[in-house]
Amino acid sequence: MIYQDTIVALATPSGVGAIAVIRLSGKDAITIAEKQFKSVSGKSLSKQKTHTIHLGHIVDGNKTIDEVLVSVFKNPNSYTGEDVVEISCHGSHYIQQEIIQLFLRNGCRMATAGEFTLRAFLNGKLDLSQAEAVADLINSDNEASHQIAMQQMRGGFSSEIAKLREELLNFASLIELELDFAEEDVEFADRSQFKALIERITFVLKRLIDSFAVGNVIKNGIPVAIVGEPNVGKSTLLNALLNEERAIVSEIAGTTRDTIEDEISIGGIGFRFIDTAGIRETKDVVESIGIKKTFEKIEQAQVIIYLFDSTQFQSMGSQFKVELEKIKNKYPQKPLIILANKVDQIDDKQIEKMQMDIPDIQLLSAKTGFGVEELTNTLLNLINTGALRNNETIITNSRHYDALLKAFDDIQKVKYGLETDLSGDLMAIDIRQALYHFGEITGEITNDDLLGNIFANFCIGK
Amino acid sequence: MIYQDTIVALATPSGVGAIAVIRLSGKDAITIAEKQFKSVSGKSLSKQKTHTIHLGHIVDGNKTIDEVLVSVFKNPNSYTGEDVVEISCHGSHYIQQEIIQLFLRNGCRMATAGEFTLRAFLNGKLDLSQAEAVADLINSDNEASHQIAMQQMRGGFSSEIAKLREELLNFASLIELELDFAEEDVEFADRSQFKALIERITFVLKRLIDSFAVGNVIKNGIPVAIVGEPNVGKSTLLNALLNEERAIVSEIAGTTRDTIEDEISIGGIGFRFIDTAGIRETKDVVESIGIKKTFEKIEQAQVIIYLFDSTQFQSMGSQFKVELEKIKNKYPQKPLIILANKVDQIDDKQIEKMQMDIPDIQLLSAKTGFGVEELTNTLLNLINTGALRNNETIITNSRHYDALLKAFDDIQKVKYGLETDLSGDLMAIDIRQALYHFGEITGEITNDDLLGNIFANFCIGK
Repeated sequence: MIYQDTIVALATPSGVGAIAVIRLSGKDAITIAEKQFKSVSGKSLSKQKTHTIHLGHIVDGNKTIDEVLVSVFKNPNSYTGEDVVEISCHGSHYIQQEIIQLFLRNGCRMATAGEFTLRAFLNGKLDLSQAEAVADLINSDNEASHQIAMQQMRGGFSSEIAKLREELLNFASLIELELDFAEEDVEFADRSQFKALIERITFVLKRLIDSFAVGNVIKNGIPVAIVGEPNVGKSTLLNALLNEERAIVSEIAGTTRDTIEDEISIGGIGFRFIDTAGIRETKDVVESIGIKKTFEKIEQAQVIIYLFDSTQFQSMGSQFKVELEKIKNKYPQKPLIILANKVDQIDDKQIEKMQMDIPDIQLLSAKTGFGVEELTNTLLNLINTGALRNNETIITNSRHYDALLKAFDDIQKVKYGLETDLSGDLMAIDIRQALYHFGEITGEITNDDLLGNIFANFCIGK
Repeated sequence: MIYQDTIVALATPSGVGAIAVIRLSGKDAITIAEKQFKSVSGKSLSKQKTHTIHLGHIVDGNKTIDEVLVSVFKNPNSYTGEDVVEISCHGSHYIQQEIIQLFLRNGCRMATAGEFTLRAFLNGKLDLSQAEAVADLINSDNEASHQIAMQQMRGGFSSEIAKLREELLNFASLIELELDFAEEDVEFADRSQFKALIERITFVLKRLIDSFAVGNVIKNGIPVAIVGEPNVGKSTLLNALLNEERAIVSEIAGTTRDTIEDEISIGGIGFRFIDTAGIRETKDVVESIGIKKTFEKIEQAQVIIYLFDSTQFQSMGSQFKVELEKIKNKYPQKPLIILANKVDQIDDKQIEKMQMDIPDIQLLSAKTGFGVEELTNTLLNLINTGALRNNETIITNSRHYDALLKAFDDIQKVKYGLETDLSGDLMAIDIRQALYHFGEITGEITNDDLLGNIFANFCIGK
């Protein structure tokens, strides 16, 4: 299944920048690049060592397209394991197009999504879960998801699986060997050692499967609905939460304000704050539509923040309680944070009265920053970040989750078989099934459909 | 004025892609990078040869930020002429930020706009007009503007100026030498040779100054107003013009349809088509606003296309003529192309009648493609592309244009001085002035304000 053709694609984000990188990979990458490249010192690319850079021009006949730096990587010492050429050109859209077109006319074909990484996998540079982590890494936009993807890409997760698989494979062989000597009724596989291994596998699988809940939250961010009427201080609150992060972000060019207003990284976890219009009952038709929408948004959220203006508590307190009851009744499972904003504008007595009325209230002054830290702590405590802090393996990929669940099922069958003295041939089938599902994760077991699905989610150029 | 500090910036477009490149330049670029880089083979960066690439991890204490490729360029063999390190990392926004932040905390400062190229200029890697061409090259979005920027970046333009400057400098010295021997009344500078040089300079300057009209058009694209009522076939015409180009563009990922709908590259020149609502007179207030807007758009255009539906000619022909007269009277200087669309739907007799009525009509069927090529030829003939085809130097930069005009003025004074036997000391002043303005173009004469203005137009990272 090793490819014979040479692929080309833009590897850097599309758009205009100082430079862009165009990547070629395949058997003929260097010879194709060489034909269109005039080194300033007259060197020929194919005679250059791996991991070297060469200044020159990309030419199309008499026409000079650009002055470029060409990097040469010789197989197997490249990302894909094939010969790879990277062309660092000026970042105009026109130049990017012209160079890619030139190579398409001269023996390359356009890479499909993720094809560079697919080739890396097929050439044994990465296992499948590592390859998948590459896409996760590129899409990670906060510390936690980055850390998990990085760990997975470096093989932390797959090495754990691979080790268990090897041990299990060992026992499978012994048990299958017993079958050959069935008439002699010998036991090559020590049943108590085997039981211990199955216990260990069960434990690891359970931990990995459980980690998916956290992993999923980390990968996709946690949707938090903010329920509150206009002017209770929603945007001030978001700005207060953004406060520390923003200072860092704004120093780097190209950071757009739009995205950070939606998603705020707190303690390395992405929280997606969903603004709602509140749920105050009115006779106004437009507003009732608003309430319906608010409930739809709460539906999607994993956490609800109920935000009210504490200067209005005296007159509106009973109304607040009605609204809170409504939310609690409708979503008894969802964590609810009740925030009394603008507490800097009321006196201690009023605060006391408010806390008596609604015991589980958190005090806040988004304007002065009072209570913001407590809020971030509350939010972080909702997630079991213990695993993350301890650098434990966390599953974020639903394909892995699926395979792990199936492997867990198979292992339970093996366990039951062991306990009930099931015959070796039947047990061997369950063990083989478990091995199969382990192999699916690391890519030892694979098929074209599976690979197609995985790499279709990559961007072109990776 | 050589900088002592080390700068860092993202060199690739911001956004998410397979890879991103972060660039460091300065005295400490390699030592700073070395501290945060763990090579997989344990190499130390500072011991590596120039133009080599190294695989490893960017680390911040115990935290691994990314697996990267690091390219090392040693001064003076780099873009800036300083030590340069380029880090090719995974293209997530988070990783880009983390790496840049890491270097900012460890001895780098954020590069200002164009600072890498400014340093290249200050270190003598490029002259000023070449440095300016780098920005033009990145912004060029069609063949013509690309070709001009490329030629300028490779020094075609500045070498011409530099040669003239040198010859003129030679004469200036001779004439100033004469001043030292004023009492002896000698002539070191051969007046007839000097006259010949001044003629030559005049000729070259005039050609360069004239080329600005073409250059400006090529650089900025040519605005073309399409005047036509709804349903006469404006969008079909734009699609027909796009036809050939589009096939190429759509093969490359990341090409947005939005831009090509506005600007279409014809024969390598960018034409910006401006849609208008037509100028049909009505009593409707809204429509009269439309007519006012149409005239405003025509005002901005350099070419007017009047497009009408030839199936309506029988009933509306006299109306068309009224409208055409109005346009011609209002804009006698602007080239006007009169297009009779949908000629596939009328017979030869009707066509003949139409051509009798409006002699300078061009026949078109945007739907079948008939007449489209003639139209593109007409559009291209409006521009003097001779210079472009002959690979002659074309000025696109208004700063150069300005300096050339001033130099031209000075040279005319010198010429006048020669003809009227002006005294050497006065002539020397005019020559020095001309030399000054030549020097401004190539950057031999410069100042901080000028440099600040020029490089402020660059993007950060270049």
